[in-house]
Amino acid sequence: MMEELLGDAEIVDAARRLRPEGDIAEAVARAAWTVVAEPGDAVVGTLIHELGAADSLTFALGSRPEGAAASDSDGIAVAARRALSEGRKRWRPRADPRGVRDALRGAHDIGAALLIPGDENWPVSLDDLGASSPSALWVRGRSELLIAEPRVSLVGARASSGYGEHVAAEIAGDLAATGAVVVSGGAYGIDGAAHRAALGVDGATVAFLAGGVDRAYPAGHQQLIGRIAQVGAVVSEAPCGAAPTKWRFLARNRLIAALGHATVVIEAGWRSGSLNTAGHAAALGRPLGAVPGPVTSASSAGCHRLLREYDAVCVTSAAEVRELWGTAAAASLREDPVDPDRTRLLDAMSTRSPASVDELARRAGLAPDRIRSLLGLLQLEGEVRRDEAGWRRVSVP
Amino acid sequence: MMEELLGDAEIVDAARRLRPEGDIAEAVARAAWTVVAEPGDAVVGTLIHELGAADSLTFALGSRPEGAAASDSDGIAVAARRALSEGRKRWRPRADPRGVRDALRGAHDIGAALLIPGDENWPVSLDDLGASSPSALWVRGRSELLIAEPRVSLVGARASSGYGEHVAAEIAGDLAATGAVVVSGGAYGIDGAAHRAALGVDGATVAFLAGGVDRAYPAGHQQLIGRIAQVGAVVSEAPCGAAPTKWRFLARNRLIAALGHATVVIEAGWRSGSLNTAGHAAALGRPLGAVPGPVTSASSAGCHRLLREYDAVCVTSAAEVRELWGTAAAASLREDPVDPDRTRLLDAMSTRSPASVDELARRAGLAPDRIRSLLGLLQLEGEVRRDEAGWRRVSVP
Repeated sequence: MMEELLGDAEIVDAARRLRPEGDIAEAVARAAWTVVAEPGDAVVGTLIHELGAADSLTFALGSRPEGAAASDSDGIAVAARRALSEGRKRWRPRADPRGVRDALRGAHDIGAALLIPGDENWPVSLDDLGASSPSALWVRGRSELLIAEPRVSLVGARASSGYGEHVAAEIAGDLAATGAVVVSGGAYGIDGAAHRAALGVDGATVAFLAGGVDRAYPAGHQQLIGRIAQVGAVVSEAPCGAAPTKWRFLARNRLIAALGHATVVIEAGWRSGSLNTAGHAAALGRPLGAVPGPVTSASSAGCHRLLREYDAVCVTSAAEVRELWGTAAAASLREDPVDPDRTRLLDAMSTRSPASVDELARRAGLAPDRIRSLLGLLQLEGEVRRDEAGWRRVSVP
Repeated sequence: MMEELLGDAEIVDAARRLRPEGDIAEAVARAAWTVVAEPGDAVVGTLIHELGAADSLTFALGSRPEGAAASDSDGIAVAARRALSEGRKRWRPRADPRGVRDALRGAHDIGAALLIPGDENWPVSLDDLGASSPSALWVRGRSELLIAEPRVSLVGARASSGYGEHVAAEIAGDLAATGAVVVSGGAYGIDGAAHRAALGVDGATVAFLAGGVDRAYPAGHQQLIGRIAQVGAVVSEAPCGAAPTKWRFLARNRLIAALGHATVVIEAGWRSGSLNTAGHAAALGRPLGAVPGPVTSASSAGCHRLLREYDAVCVTSAAEVRELWGTAAAASLREDPVDPDRTRLLDAMSTRSPASVDELARRAGLAPDRIRSLLGLLQLEGEVRRDEAGWRRVSVP
């Protein structure tokens, strides 16, 4: 496969236009892997890790018959050999140089970049995904946003309520205005509200798409995604032309979870896809927040589920989202210590009827000495006053 | 003091009317302690624990001069001696037999019982309060409810919203209808909604008052508290005639927290007194739940605070409250495992345009063999069908 790809002048030209500098074989090989394999294919990740992108492509889709390839891998355990054999069957139906050429040309036509590991703007946080980390990313817009800090992933249901959209806009707007990159999935509902709020304050936002970056999905978000591509970044690991299939949505979610320093689910139904993103964030050890809502609203049931079952942190404001990644210390619930005797004495006092120290001692259940010393302090604070008839409170509680 | 009390025929008569059987000195002493000391006085609890109720009263408020009493306690450490000396100063202003007589008579007049440790219906769960456990309880109504199981404390803000009252009524009604005793504080707002819902389903409910059980507080809840006294139980550690002071409200909260097998805060502002009850529940190691609400509602801010800072469990229904005390296993978030290849294949299929196995293999990024075996399964499930033109999905997703 690699020989074919590098022997195709159109492919090499297209790749060189996209990446004027650097190892062209590496770039073509990684682009080819995004075409040949589905996102999140751990066998691909393992092969690339072991052999590099170009050699793994040669090894996996070389022209040699399968038997010969298997003899190359004598040292590979049986399970690995089977995984490789299964992988070859998956990849071979798409192992066509035309697909790679179309992907490279499509990206160039739309002004998208091909980002690969080792690039300055490659988000190393995605490497936490291990064998399922992406082979490459196709990026429209400012790829430097992928490494800007802090990044927060705000996700939620497409079927959002007015409440959810309001909260998404409040939180995303505040975070974006204070310098955070708002990462989301470009979908209707919460995602859209988060992106829009970030754009509305001239903040930074990144949309991860399930299909190619040349296809705005959903179609109703064509303008929004176009705007994000201009001032933010629109990213996918699927090549141009790829449709946003259900599998790619699920796979895309892991990238959103891995890119954010924290993930917050703003509103989600009981089976919302954003719980999948939350699950990835939790599995990656990323801080996970969930915004509560009325228990009478089905649109918040998924968030409450995350609070109950995933140990998500309850977040109600942008400030609390910032605490997720540790920029602010958690406030303490501890109240200011109040002297209980002081409370008892004030309880025992009236603003109208004056009382003697002994009477107050009886009412409050405190010793007269204690009453006298407390009255002294309270008088200094202006809480009580004395006249000939006795002691009174100055103000009602 | 004890000699005086037991030498007063009216006191002994009143006590005997309240408790025809049992140790009359113990009952009078404990009644006296509720009159002489404020609720939660840990020095009282320690004295009663060490000396018993009657002897501790004699020791603390005997007629001997303080110097002689101090010589009794040679073995007591300096700090304890000072605490005792301070206690004497607190208790002495109220050490009047008339107060004890009024408390006993008042209870009898209103049909209240004097419940003391060792009684069949004494709630031993209150003993978890240690030195601050109550000396005795004054109870109107069915004192057996104090030991019925399970008991759940439902509390919340007086300044509740329609949402909070709705949720309180839903949860309390469901719990009471399924046999739980609903414990609360008889206040306006959430407390009232919880009690009323329990009464509405002929369920059991207990109201802890801060003042004496002869005084309905708040006055607007006279009818409600009267009804609870008839079919549930109205309880206080303060004697009849005692005013509901702020201190007694705070002290009362610890009883609500200690009596419930779990405590749930339904709705609470940022500084609601129900957070104090929640703090007691947490300190006692009782399961603590909080009901979330809109983050835009100040009435839920205290609940969200409990979720964030007190590690309270998010509860959204009566079933989830029951889980707090372990009657149901926590549901798992884990979804049914779905074969990812199955998802990919269905993504690749159309309900309109038929496709060949090879075409589906290319679209789905799967091996043709794998496609064939999946199509076989999906055909059995009625998800796909084949005709001369190829394979199609039967229904839209």
